[in-house]
Formats: sequence, structure tokens, C-alpha cells
Amino acid sequence: MTSPSSAFDLDAFGRRHIGTTPSDHSVMLAELGYDSLEALMSAAVPTSIRMGEVLNSAIPAAATEREALDELAALASQNTVRTPMIGLGYYGTITPAVIQRNVLENPSWYTAYTPYQPEISQGRLEALINFQTMVENLTGLDIANASMLDEGTAVVEGMLLARRGSKSKSNRFVVDVDALPQTKALLVSRAEAVGIELVEAELSEGTDVSALGEHFGIFVQYPSASGRVWNPSDVIAASKAQGALAVVAADLLALALITSPGELGADVAVGTSQRFGVPMGFGGPHAGYMAVRKGLERQMPGRLVGVSQDAAGHPAYRLSLQAREQHIRREKATSNICTAQVLLAVMASMYAVYHGPRGIRAIATQTAGKAKLLAGWLEDLGQHVAHDAYFDTLSVHVPGLAKNVVARGRELGVLLWEVDEATVQVSVDETTTLAELHLVTRAFGGPDERELDGPITETAIPDSLRRTSPYLEHPVFNTHHSETQMMRYLKQLADRDYALDRGMIPLGSCTMKLNAATEMQAVTWPAFANLHPFAPEADVVGSLGLVEQLESWLAEVTGYDTVSLQPNAGSQGELAGLLAIRGYHLANGEGERDVCLIPSSAHGTNAASAVLAGMRVVVVATDELGNVDLDDLRAKIAEHAASISALMITYPSTHGVYEHEVKQITQAVHDAGGQVYVDGANLNALLGYARFGDFGGDVSHLNLHKTFCIPHGGGGPGVGPVAAKAHLAPYLPGHPMAQRADHAGGFVHGGGPVSAAPYGSPSILPISWAYVRMMGAEGLKQATASAVLAANFVASRLREHFPVLYTGDNGLVAHECILDLRPLTAETGVSVDDVAKRLIDYGFHAPTMSFPVAGTLMVEPTESEDLAELERFVEAMVAIKAEADAVGRGEWPADDNPLRNAPHTAESVIAGEWEHPYTREQAVYPVRSLVRNKYWAPVRRIDQAYGDRNLVCACPPVEAFA
Amino acid sequence: MTSPSSAFDLDAFGRRHIGTTPSDHSVMLAELGYDSLEALMSAAVPTSIRMGEVLNSAIPAAATEREALDELAALASQNTVRTPMIGLGYYGTITPAVIQRNVLENPSWYTAYTPYQPEISQGRLEALINFQTMVENLTGLDIANASMLDEGTAVVEGMLLARRGSKSKSNRFVVDVDALPQTKALLVSRAEAVGIELVEAELSEGTDVSALGEHFGIFVQYPSASGRVWNPSDVIAASKAQGALAVVAADLLALALITSPGELGADVAVGTSQRFGVPMGFGGPHAGYMAVRKGLERQMPGRLVGVSQDAAGHPAYRLSLQAREQHIRREKATSNICTAQVLLAVMASMYAVYHGPRGIRAIATQTAGKAKLLAGWLEDLGQHVAHDAYFDTLSVHVPGLAKNVVARGRELGVLLWEVDEATVQVSVDETTTLAELHLVTRAFGGPDERELDGPITETAIPDSLRRTSPYLEHPVFNTHHSETQMMRYLKQLADRDYALDRGMIPLGSCTMKLNAATEMQAVTWPAFANLHPFAPEADVVGSLGLVEQLESWLAEVTGYDTVSLQPNAGSQGELAGLLAIRGYHLANGEGERDVCLIPSSAHGTNAASAVLAGMRVVVVATDELGNVDLDDLRAKIAEHAASISALMITYPSTHGVYEHEVKQITQAVHDAGGQVYVDGANLNALLGYARFGDFGGDVSHLNLHKTFCIPHGGGGPGVGPVAAKAHLAPYLPGHPMAQRADHAGGFVHGGGPVSAAPYGSPSILPISWAYVRMMGAEGLKQATASAVLAANFVASRLREHFPVLYTGDNGLVAHECILDLRPLTAETGVSVDDVAKRLIDYGFHAPTMSFPVAGTLMVEPTESEDLAELERFVEAMVAIKAEADAVGRGEWPADDNPLRNAPHTAESVIAGEWEHPYTREQAVYPVRSLVRNKYWAPVRRIDQAYGDRNLVCACPPVEAFA
Repeated sequence: MTSPSSAFDLDAFGRRHIGTTPSDHSVMLAELGYDSLEALMSAAVPTSIRMGEVLNSAIPAAATEREALDELAALASQNTVRTPMIGLGYYGTITPAVIQRNVLENPSWYTAYTPYQPEISQGRLEALINFQTMVENLTGLDIANASMLDEGTAVVEGMLLARRGSKSKSNRFVVDVDALPQTKALLVSRAEAVGIELVEAELSEGTDVSALGEHFGIFVQYPSASGRVWNPSDVIAASKAQGALAVVAADLLALALITSPGELGADVAVGTSQRFGVPMGFGGPHAGYMAVRKGLERQMPGRLVGVSQDAAGHPAYRLSLQAREQHIRREKATSNICTAQVLLAVMASMYAVYHGPRGIRAIATQTAGKAKLLAGWLEDLGQHVAHDAYFDTLSVHVPGLAKNVVARGRELGVLLWEVDEATVQVSVDETTTLAELHLVTRAFGGPDERELDGPITETAIPDSLRRTSPYLEHPVFNTHHSETQMMRYLKQLADRDYALDRGMIPLGSCTMKLNAATEMQAVTWPAFANLHPFAPEADVVGSLGLVEQLESWLAEVTGYDTVSLQPNAGSQGELAGLLAIRGYHLANGEGERDVCLIPSSAHGTNAASAVLAGMRVVVVATDELGNVDLDDLRAKIAEHAASISALMITYPSTHGVYEHEVKQITQAVHDAGGQVYVDGANLNALLGYARFGDFGGDVSHLNLHKTFCIPHGGGGPGVGPVAAKAHLAPYLPGHPMAQRADHAGGFVHGGGPVSAAPYGSPSILPISWAYVRMMGAEGLKQATASAVLAANFVASRLREHFPVLYTGDNGLVAHECILDLRPLTAETGVSVDDVAKRLIDYGFHAPTMSFPVAGTLMVEPTESEDLAELERFVEAMVAIKAEADAVGRGEWPADDNPLRNAPHTAESVIAGEWEHPYTREQAVYPVRSLVRNKYWAPVRRIDQAYGDRNLVCACPPVEAFA
Repeated sequence: MTSPSSAFDLDAFGRRHIGTTPSDHSVMLAELGYDSLEALMSAAVPTSIRMGEVLNSAIPAAATEREALDELAALASQNTVRTPMIGLGYYGTITPAVIQRNVLENPSWYTAYTPYQPEISQGRLEALINFQTMVENLTGLDIANASMLDEGTAVVEGMLLARRGSKSKSNRFVVDVDALPQTKALLVSRAEAVGIELVEAELSEGTDVSALGEHFGIFVQYPSASGRVWNPSDVIAASKAQGALAVVAADLLALALITSPGELGADVAVGTSQRFGVPMGFGGPHAGYMAVRKGLERQMPGRLVGVSQDAAGHPAYRLSLQAREQHIRREKATSNICTAQVLLAVMASMYAVYHGPRGIRAIATQTAGKAKLLAGWLEDLGQHVAHDAYFDTLSVHVPGLAKNVVARGRELGVLLWEVDEATVQVSVDETTTLAELHLVTRAFGGPDERELDGPITETAIPDSLRRTSPYLEHPVFNTHHSETQMMRYLKQLADRDYALDRGMIPLGSCTMKLNAATEMQAVTWPAFANLHPFAPEADVVGSLGLVEQLESWLAEVTGYDTVSLQPNAGSQGELAGLLAIRGYHLANGEGERDVCLIPSSAHGTNAASAVLAGMRVVVVATDELGNVDLDDLRAKIAEHAASISALMITYPSTHGVYEHEVKQITQAVHDAGGQVYVDGANLNALLGYARFGDFGGDVSHLNLHKTFCIPHGGGGPGVGPVAAKAHLAPYLPGHPMAQRADHAGGFVHGGGPVSAAPYGSPSILPISWAYVRMMGAEGLKQATASAVLAANFVASRLREHFPVLYTGDNGLVAHECILDLRPLTAETGVSVDDVAKRLIDYGFHAPTMSFPVAGTLMVEPTESEDLAELERFVEAMVAIKAEADAVGRGEWPADDNPLRNAPHTAESVIAGEWEHPYTREQAVYPVRSLVRNKYWAPVRRIDQAYGDRNLVCACPPVEAFA
């Protein structure tokens, strides 16, 4: 009835989000020897950084779930959804209801983690290999990855790949002028940071590329941004002849009708799969894509799903060439991308599975036909349509009248695009109706209605570029075409996977907490889902208001002045923060500051981001406790003196410890004229108790998909806002097409963009908005304390079985603990892998393996797990320890025991003779409760090396599974 | 872009709904020897009943999924959702988002069938036993059933139960005057039909019940309809002293605070669980409930879930005392109820699981506190609140002003109830806010705002009726209180069950077709979900429009003049139809017509409904082909002559055959002055090809949950519209609180109500509306033909292995086929049960067992299954036949073979020594494809008799599963 005064009020969301109850807390605190949560937190969090008070009134008191939804509905009602015909990479699309319900709204899909444990991720890995196959087919290239963050950043990655892959030593990259404006803006800022020279040329107008001088790469938009379908094969050939690689951004739907980039000679194809059933969502998230010609696959950024085999020789999927991944190559890295857009890639792949080649071709033909029809109507009005050959987009020449035409369209309910005062662009799509074409005609001064005199079949695709090669011929794209089939296919895949709806996923540094159903609700509301990212400001007031509120809340909880929500992954937030530091030094005339200090324990992405921000990485040692070695830091500062640009640290550290000397560390960097970057990956240990900005941080990125409840989606989407002090605001990412230049607090962000869309992935921001709104300041603090309590409880219960590496004051960890398996491995031969896979048999997702320390497991239970689940995990780990000890004692051979053979499939314990020294029951029911609630791994342990030796990244033939 | 001209257009919903493609059809038709679907249908459907043309323009051309949703949104926008404070059995409630997403919007729950195969229904059976336990606890009675259709019909069933259970031979039933008006209306029409005399008395005003004469039962509303909380124990005691049974309708939420009916002496408690998290939905569906004192359990109507044990001795749930069910006792039946409201009962039970006893008590206390607060405010205004003791409802005395107060409230946004010109009633609930209480005060002329000076704790519950007994103490109600826990509990239960999302459920006469995601979407839209059934007409224009359109479409496809959507189950539609016939004869002065002719092959419900409509059942013989024996029919007509009231037939017959002589049959009945009732259960074989009204039907019920895609929900909800010729319109069910007296076509329905709400279960009508709208006339016809093709294909492929009983012209069946297992059983000892349970091992839900013929399986594949799934089923049946033959040959002992031991759980093939004469692999992977996609039965075969001998109908102790 009234808003709750505390997070433990009965109708408070907090007590639904936090898995442990106050009485559980008592039990757990007793185990640790504390009499209250506050006493524990006082002992754990160094006094020097503790906040004096609770978060101030910038965070409103907790709302109930119903109140939060009411407020979101009020925000949604401030948006106006007109029919977006702006195009520019974002198109109306129909999300098949069966996919929306059973993927986007189903926790079995959206709460899954990145498939680093492939044995329990076969469902989404199959969906991703379908995605890769779809992209490979449509682009006509050999190998596609499992998605990119968006089209704009994919083009940037294509440019970087071309530089690596090209034989040319040139630093010049040629860009066709008729490319998407947001892509060009991204290329400018990203090229500048790494010293690439961009040369813009009118390639589609016949510019002679060989006259442009040596270049390592060339970029073409196909069809072009203005809609033209043109043949770039001569340009590509000329460019390649002098050693360059060709990058083509291609519209996936158009590729159903026009010759593929691969057939035109492209080395790299990039783009977005948004219009394959993923709502525009005011800009994202969507799955970008990248495909390359054979030979370049090891240069490709992002994740790549491949086929290998399991211990029984059955085909099994897993991430290939994993070096690019968790074990990212630090300062040698060529890309900083970690997160993919798995959930969106799954949706796009399922759109292709559901429609099949015939359906996709029909949708493309209808789309192209509608564009041709509209062009005819406009020409009948005397309008001049710029190109003869086009797919879905018309550029109309209306000298001096563009603003009027667009304004008239808006009044009528359709959003057109004003390219300049003389040009209006209009894009049609799958959803465009006859009535909407009438409205467009009227916006150009046409009559009210035109009749159709037959089915639409004619298009403006030139014969010379008509696609003749087939695509989507694999059975998976030719089987699941009824809704019943599709629903069952999705269910079968989901059944193979382990997500948060089955049990704990205690991943250190990844914070797999509850993604509440209420938080997810607004994501699919049309008023948020159906907005074009470049819609006029007046149409998106509600979304901008939500962005502004969330920015101000995030600034408040981190102690910063301003926040940008544009980065659509943590890695991009890091990059944006470092680019801001770079911009700041440049503006101060200190362009020589290019050294980025990074502790040796840092996440590999840190170093990769620094390199991409044009910095040199200098590693700072850590001491035996895992903390930054202050002496070494001072030595490195002295050594690099005036070159110090920044220090990147993670707090609490990647070892899961609250470091004591963080204030001295930040002070030392500031004294040297450097800036401090605090990596926010571990914010879940700090929220409400300390703030980065208060202990010396100048800039941070946060992970909304960790601390702020955006689901991991099986490996994306992520959101990585960058938060900074006021002096860095002018260098935070801006965007040429942003509806508003200023952000919460009036700060203007003046840097180059880091994402294709001005606000990154706004359609999922309601999730984090709702989380903060429903927790309130007190609830956020309770969550932090409960997470720290859970980690310490697990550490305490397991300490006698596995040494806990790294603790801070009073022997306490922060929100995660590292279990050292090296002594066990030394004694018994049982490896981290064996323990991780054996946990599957016990019904768990393994903790983080061998990060940040090889031979360890890092456990982060989060606040959302209940005491019984924590106990179940402890019980499993203790039992596994006992099994390992039995191996150590020689009771089971080192090469034939329940650990080495884990995970056990049902088939492996049922079929044929049983020839192991332990029983079938011991294999799969080591704990009796598993009989009533068993997750069955669909494959046995996967041979990683085999898959890398025999790289297959497309759907295997059906016979392989026979 | 434009509406498709045929159901096989690419963007047509029809090709998503129908599982077989045109090329599949060719393959299947070739098997049958026909060259087109039309040729098959011409051969199958007797020419004498074929429609001349396609359905006329009353059915609009097929809309795409998007167009249908747009139209539904337009209808929704014509509704106005004001805050309903009308009460009268329908209250605002908050559906926990985790329950909405993971039950109501999850096909694993909503596409499940009734749990007649308990081994593959353990998840929902557990949810239902939680429901029963919740009802038992709150009502203080011993045994509750698994839900009733709604509160009003539950009271009627309570009355009928009292008549059966009472020692009194009286036909008098005493009803407290202060009962819900819709309940009283239902009692009147239902009592009259079966000769019960109702006596209304002011029991709560102290009327001496012993002065009312002998009566078999007494009925009390508690709290009363006007909101009073009073103690009926003296009245109950006095009534029982003279041999009556006491039926109490109690508000489940109030029972958290007030003494339970059981403690007050009630024998039977009934009511609704709507306010436990199920949206009002303009009246339904919700789960009604019934609980009884020990000793009456075998008198209870509806389904009863009990605990038994499986072949391994583990506890297992299943339906108890099944005689009441499929095997309903025909004319000896005491109730005609088949369907329960499983999906809604699951939701309500999960609401209790999620909130637990402390949460439920707090919600009740807050609700009662808000009522008390409001009463104080109104009294401060000088208003007279009628009762001193109340829970959530205030009766306010405003002589002459009631209309004004209600009108003012409506302007302000709150809906109050005008009882009479001097009385306004207002009910508060879980959702009521302080702001809404202010609005109510203002409606009564109060000031704008009143402040709260502290938490609300005071209620108007009298001390003498304060509940002291505990409830919801079982661990299940005290465990799953965080959202993560709840999500996992729901997932674990769903994982145990087999629903349409896993595979085919080929249930003869139950038509388990696709429930499309688009059809389901509007169900949870607030504009449909949050309407009170007695809201003013102007607020519900959209829902009334939807009702009217659907009525007119259903009339069109059946050849009738008018339709009532009020019956909320097929059984209630039957009853309504027979009551209409009864009313018609009475109005014609032919009250002596009371014989209902029913073929021996009829579904048991037919006879039960006839009895409840006050008719005598006379059975007509069927011939060896399963058709009505025309000679016997004529003989029976002659025998009963002027007493003939009606004939009930099912068309196509319950044997799945298109009978030839149906026109002669209906003519014979008409000639005798009788009316013809055609049971619409098998309409899926006829839609678009023939119409009941065209071949002699006067009235029919349809099953929207069969032919028109409302999901079975695991055993409900159902919707059973009654359709009739114009002459019966005046006798179709009306409702005293209906917003409109007239129906589509202007027909006024003047009979008594058969459901508590005027439009039955309107919140799920968008499902059927969308189905018809998206299929169009041509699509409906295609669906029918595809269903008939599938059934004939399966029959043809299996005929050499199992004799197909009953075929019509050209050896064709209609939409289902009966496989005769009796020869197999005779030869091998393998029973129908063995085959059905063995199908589980093969990954199938068994067909209908032993109905309509003992020893057979009736298979109805429906149009939604694809050819591969049909082939998979055929493969399984052929393989099972081979297994049975091996038993017959003595290769396996009769008491130890894969059939007798089916289903096999994972545990049963893994744990311990294997001592069967077949292998573990043969047990669970008889077909190799099962290795990749295996549904594991959670329990072994369940011992039905054990459970009936040891009736336990509440949650077993957790230790039972250890």
C-alpha cells in the first residue's frame, strides 16, 4: 500500500532478490563469528574507503514490483511509436511470437552463462553454430563468428583485422563515402587512437582506387548507405591487387537476393542481424556479425563456435581457438572484445530456422518489391529517385524541401530521414504495409491512396547482381517451419543447457545473480522495443528520461559526476574510459602520456583495451597476497614519469580481496599526473559501502550484466557504462546522431562514439533501472552485504578441504573466493578440469576456472542464492574432494575414476557393459537428492584440442549424430 | 503486406499452425490412394451432409499474426480499466511476475493435458496437491479437490453433494439471503431442474433455522455478501441437528484471519482462489475450490489428486477415485464436471508457495486494515457503515444517493457497487493503494487527502472469530520464497511433465493441437486481464465486442443462429444446451417431455448432464460399426413417444466415424417432437465441411479447448460455448449481471446462468478469436482436412499391426482412429496399460485408453503434428508391437519384459544390479534417436489401487521422498 521503509518489508522486492533470509544470515554469521551483517562488513571493508552514510536521496526509496512497472509504463507512455522508415541499419522486423515467448522471455535461454563449459551449453552452442552457418551462407564466406556487438564496431574490428591480415605495411584504410554515418564516425575515432589514416573516397561513383596510394584495407557498404545496389568487385580487385584486404558491410536480408560479398571478392563481411527478428529497441542490443575468407579465421575477433567430439566420439560443440577468449592475449591482443550478443544471435538464427531459405527469400523479395512500388509512385509524382538499382532504400532528391517532407511524414505517422536539405531517404522492410506506403507518398505530396493491381514481384535488383548461389540448405533451416516444430526445437535445445533456472552458477568475477521477471517485463513492451535509434527527440522522451535517471543513479552509487550508457559491453566501457583519459591528456597538451600501468593480476581485457586506446602497457607486480605491490608501482611511476597516462586497477581486486592501500595507490598515480581507471567488474562487493570516485577513481566502467541484473543471455548482451569525474566528461563518448548532447547533470560528452547507436543497448536498460528502483539504496546495500556473507560462508565451509587463496583483513574475502586446487592436483593428479566437470554430475555449473590464478577455482555465489543451495554446493565440493582423495590413495586408477570420466551422460552409464572401477550409481547419483532432480549432461567431456586441429564452424551433417 | 489470399501464403498463420506441408500431404495421400485433400474429404465426409460452399463472409479472410494482434489491441483499447472495488467474489490481486512468466506464459505448463497419465504428470500433480493442501489448511477441512470451475457452480455442486450426503430425505435447501447474487441465481436455475426447493432465510440476522422445516442442507456465505463477518456455528449446529449438511462459501484470503469453516462445523467449504494471484479477467477463468469433512470425499465432484506409490515403492501422485472421471458414471452420475481449472489452480497454489503463511497472513491483514481505515474515514464523514465486523468489504448506507456515489467514484477512477438505491458496497484488496482509498472517500463527498499516521494494523475482525489455528505449515509453503527459488521450483516441476512442447499428445476426442504463442499474447494484456466481470458496460466495450464477434463466427461455422460463451467447460455447455431444450418444452406446455436418448457409445458426461437437466436417460443401441442403431432408435422413440425430450449424439461419432444416417436420425427425433443435441467434441473433423445446424442439430456445445486452440492447461481451463437455433435462444443461459442482454444477431438469452460470470471465462477468449481470425474460412477448412488426413495416415500405416476399429465410407476414419489391442492382449497378455506406459519410454504421451471401447487406444494426431512426428509415432507403435510379439512367443516372461515394467526411470536402469531379461538399453533407448532427445519419466508405473486404498490427498512429508 505504501512504499516499504526497508528492504525486508513483506512486499519489498529486496527479499525476493536476496536468496538468504535474515535467519539464514544468523546461521551464516555464526559460522564466521560475527553477530551482524554490519559487523561483518566493518571487518571486511577497509575503514579508509568506507562511505560515511548511506547513498543519498539521488536513489529513491525502494518501489514495489508493481510500482516500478507503473513508473516504467509512465515512461513508456512518453514515447511515441511512429513507423520508422529511417533505415540506416535499423529496420522494422517481425519477431515470431514463438521465438519471443520461448527464447527472449524464457529464463532457460536468457539466464544462461557464456558457454565456457561446453558440455552443459550444447543447446545454445547449436543455436550459435546455426547463426554462423546462416552468416557464412548469406555472405558467401567461409567462417563466421558467433556475433559481434553491432555493425559499427564490427566494421572497426574489420579494419583492425585487415591491418593484421594485410601484407601491406601501410597504415591507410580506404572508406567508401556512401557508408552509414554512424559507422564512419566510429571509424574516425577508433582509427585515430591507433594511428590509422582514413581516406574517404567515392568508390561507388567510380573513383580509381589504385590512385589512392598504398592502403592495407578498403571498406565498402553494400548496398550503400544511400540505398544503391552496386557492384564493388572491380574496386575490390584493384585494392586487393596492391595488397589490401576488402571489408564489406552487407545487409543480411538483401543478400538473399544479391550476389554475396564472398562472390564479389570480399575478405571480410560484417553487418547486423537485427532485421532477422530482433526489435530495433532504440538501437540495441542486436547481434552484429563477421565472416571471413578461409585463412583469416585465426585473426577474427570474438567467439567462434566449432565442432569437436566428446569422450565417446560423438560430435559436440564448443568455443574454438579459445586463446582469444578468457585467456585473452593481454597487451598482444588485437581486439578487446569478450562479450558476444548470444541471446540476439540465437533469436536471429531461429528466425532463419523458422523461415527457411524460401521464407527469407520471400521476405527479401517482398521488401524489395515494396521499395520498387514506392519508387514508381514517387516518380509518378515527378519525384527524382537517385538510384536505379536498390534493395529497400530510396534516396529522393527534393531540393530545399527535405525538412518539409520529413515533417509531413512525421505528422502522418512515418519517420523518414533527412540526409541533407535536398535529400530524403526512406527504407521499407518486412513490416511495411500498403497503408504506410500511402503515407510516404502523401508526405511527398501524393494522393491519398493508390491501389495494387496484383502481387508485388518486381524489384530494382539489377540482373547482373542477382544472387544465383544457394543458401540455408542445411536441414536445420528446412525442418522447423511449423510453430509446433519450432517450439519443440527450442525446448530440446534449452533442455540440454544449464542456466540459472536449474541451480547456482558460482562464477567468480561474473556475478550471476537473479534476473527478475519484473525486471525483464518492459524489454518487450512495444513502446521501448519498436523505437528507431535515430527517431526524433520528441518521440523518445520516455526512453531518454529512463537513460537520464539511470545515469544519475549510477553516478551516485559510484561517486562519479557523469555516466555514459553508450558502451554496449564491458570491454567497450573500458575502451571508452581509456579514450577519455587519452583525450584529456591531449587537451592538456600532454599527448606524450601514453603509458598505462596494469597490475599483473588484471583481467586480460584491461591490457587489450589500453592497446586499442593507443597506450603502451606497463605491468605492475602484485605481492604474494595478490595486492598491487606499492613499491613496484612507485618504481614504475618513477621510471615512466611524464609518460604516465593511467593506472587500471580492479577493486576489489581480481583476487576477490579488498585491498588496503588503494588510496595510496591512487594518490601515487595522481601525484605523477596520471589518471586512475577503476575496473567496475567487482562492484557487487562494494555497492553501498564504498565508491570508486571517493577513493581516487577518475573513471570506471560498470557491467550492468553483472552488478545490475541484465541477464547474461548465454554470452551477451552486456552493457558497460562508463562513469567519470567531471573533468573527463568532455571526452566521454558522444554520438553524431544522439537526440540530446547533454547527459544527467548537464554534462556534455564530446568524444567519438564507441557504439553504433547513441545509447548503446537501450532496450535492456529497463532491467537495471527496475533493479535499482526496486532495491532502493538500502536494498542495494543489503545485497552487497549478503553477497559478501555468502562468499565468506562458502570460503569458511570449504577452507578445511581446499585452501582459500588471498584474504584481506580478518581473513575475510570480498564477494568471491579462490579455492586453490594445486595441492590437490599435486597429490592426486585430479585437475581443475576434472573437478569442474565432476560438478556437472553433481548438478552444478563450475566456478571460474584458472582465473586469475591457474590451478584454482574462483567461486562467487552472489546474494541471490539461498542457504540450501550454498550448502548443496559445499556438500558437492566436499564429496568431490573425498573422491579425489580416493584417487590419491590409489583406490581408483588415475585414468579411470568418476572425476576423470566426468561428466557422465545418461547413455554412458546405461549402454553396454560397465567396466569402470566405480558403480553406475556413483557416476551419476553421487548424492542421493540427484535422483529426484537430475540435470543430464548431453555429451561427455569434450576434446578441445581435436576441435582446434580440425576446425569446423558450420552445422555438421545430420548423419554425424547418427 | 496484404492479407493472404490462401492459408498457404508465406506469411499466413495457417502454415505455421498446420504441421504438415503440401508436399507432406502428397506423400500421405499417396499412402491412402488419393490425389488431393479434397478427394480424400469427398470420400470421407458423406455427401448428404457436405456444405455446398465455403463458410461465408461472416468469417473474415485470414489475418496475419501481426494484423490479428493489431485488431486485438484495438479491441483492448476500447476497454477502460478503472480500479475495481466491486468485490462480490472478484478482487484485485498481484500475480507474481515469476509465476506469470514461468507458468501462465510457459508452454511446459499451459500445453499439458489432463494428468490421466500420472507417470508423466508428476509436476502438475504436485502443484495440485499443494493446492489441495492449501485449501484444506485454510478451510480447516479434511479433503479438498483439485479445483472447481468457479465459486457459483461450486456452491451448486455443494448443494448436490449435500443432497447425496445428508441423511434427510427432504428436497429443501436453505440459503442465507446475504449470499453473492450470482450464486443465488445459479442455485435457482440449477435447483429447479433437479427438483430441489430453495428456502431463502436471513440466517445472519438470527432466523431460527429449526423453524424452517426439514432440509437436507444449508448454505452460508462467509464473510457474507454484504461484507459481514459473523459466526454461523449456531446456525450450522441447529441445521445439522436435524440431519442437514452445511455448505459454507468462504473467502480464502479472509480465512487467513478468521476461524475456518471446518472449525465452525461446516461439512463442505467452497469458493474461489481467484485472489491468490489470478487476474480477474472479466470473470474468469479462475480456480474454484471445494473441501469436505472426512467421510464425504467419495461424494465429492471433480478431480482429486492423491498420493500412491510407484513400482519402486517411491511416493507418486495421481488422480484418486478415478471413477468420477473419464469413466464417469453416466446416468448414475451426481455431477457432470470433468474439466478442472488446473492452470489457475497451479497459479493460486504457487501464490501460496511463494508468499508462505506469513506472507498470506500479512496480505490478509493489510487488506482488512485498509477496510477498517476506510471505514473510519467514511464514518468521520458521517456515513453509516452497516456492519461492525468485516474483512474487506463495507456496506455503506446512503439513502437515495447510491447511484450518485457510484457515478462519482467512476469519474474518479474507482468502481463501487450499487446494491440498491440506499446502499453502496466497496471492497478493498491486496492492490488497493492509499490514493485509491482517497478516491473512495471523495466519491462519498470526503476531502481530497487523508494522511496515514502509522502502519495499518487495526482490523474489524471480531476477537471471537480471530483465527488461532495454523495453516500452510508444510515445508513446500516455507521454502520457495526468493524469486530464484521459485523459478527453480517451477522449472523442476515442469521438467517432470510431458506437454506439447516435447512431442505429440495424440488423444482421441481431446484434440491436442497447437496453442500458438500469438494466440496466447492478449490473455495477459492488462486491458483484458484487469476487468471486473460486473464493470459497467461502457468500460468493457472492447471485450463485449470480442465476445460478439466470436459468437457470430462460432454460429457461422456450426450453422446455428446464436451462441452463448458463458459455459466455462464443455460439461457446462452440455448442461446449458439441455436446460435450453427443457425450457423450450416447458414453454410449449410439454413439460412431460423428459426422456433423453443417448447412444451407448456416448461420452459419460452426456448422461450426467442429462440427469442434471432433470431428464431421464434412455440408452440407444449402436451397431457393430459403432453407429447409432436406427431401428433401435425408432423403437425407443415409439416406446417413449410423447416423453421424448431430446437425443444427444456426437458427430462424428465417439468412434471417430462420419455416420451416414445422421439426417435420418435427426429427422426421426424431430418427427417425434424431440430436439437434437449434437455434442461438438469432434468438431475438428467437420469445420468447414459440414455444420451441425445444417443436418438437424438444434443445439450443440463446442469445446474451445479442443477445436479452437485454448490450451488444456494441464486439465483446464476449458470453455464450452453452447450454440443453438433461434427457437432455443430464449432458453440459453442469461445472467442477472450481464452488461448486455442481447447477443450477436440480436438474440436475447433468457435462461438461468450456468456460470458465475456473465461471459464465463472471457480472459481466454482472445485465444480462439485469434485462431479463427488468423485461419480464415479457408484455413479452418485446411486444418480439418489435414487432421483427417493425419488420422487416416496413421490408421493406414498401423493397420497391419493393430486392427483399426470402425471406419466409414471407403474404409476411412474421421479425425481419429481406434486401434484395437484386444487381439494382442489375448495373444500375448500385453495390456493397453502396458502399451500406453511403454509409449512413455519411447517419448510419447499415450493416446486415449479404453474409450470409447475397452481394450483399445484412440489416436487423434490433429493437424498440428508434422509428418516426421507422425512417422516417429508409427515407428514406436510398430516397435512396441514387435516387443509384445516377443512376449507372446515367450522370449520374455509375461511378468518381466520392457512393456510390463514400463515406464523405466533413469534410476531404475542405473541403480543396482540389472536382473531383467532385456538390456538397460532396450529398456530406455529402444529407438536410437532417444539418446539425443530423451524424456525421463520421473517415477515408475504407479499403483492406482494402493492410492485408493490409502487415500492421502495432501502434501506428503518431505521424508517420504528420502
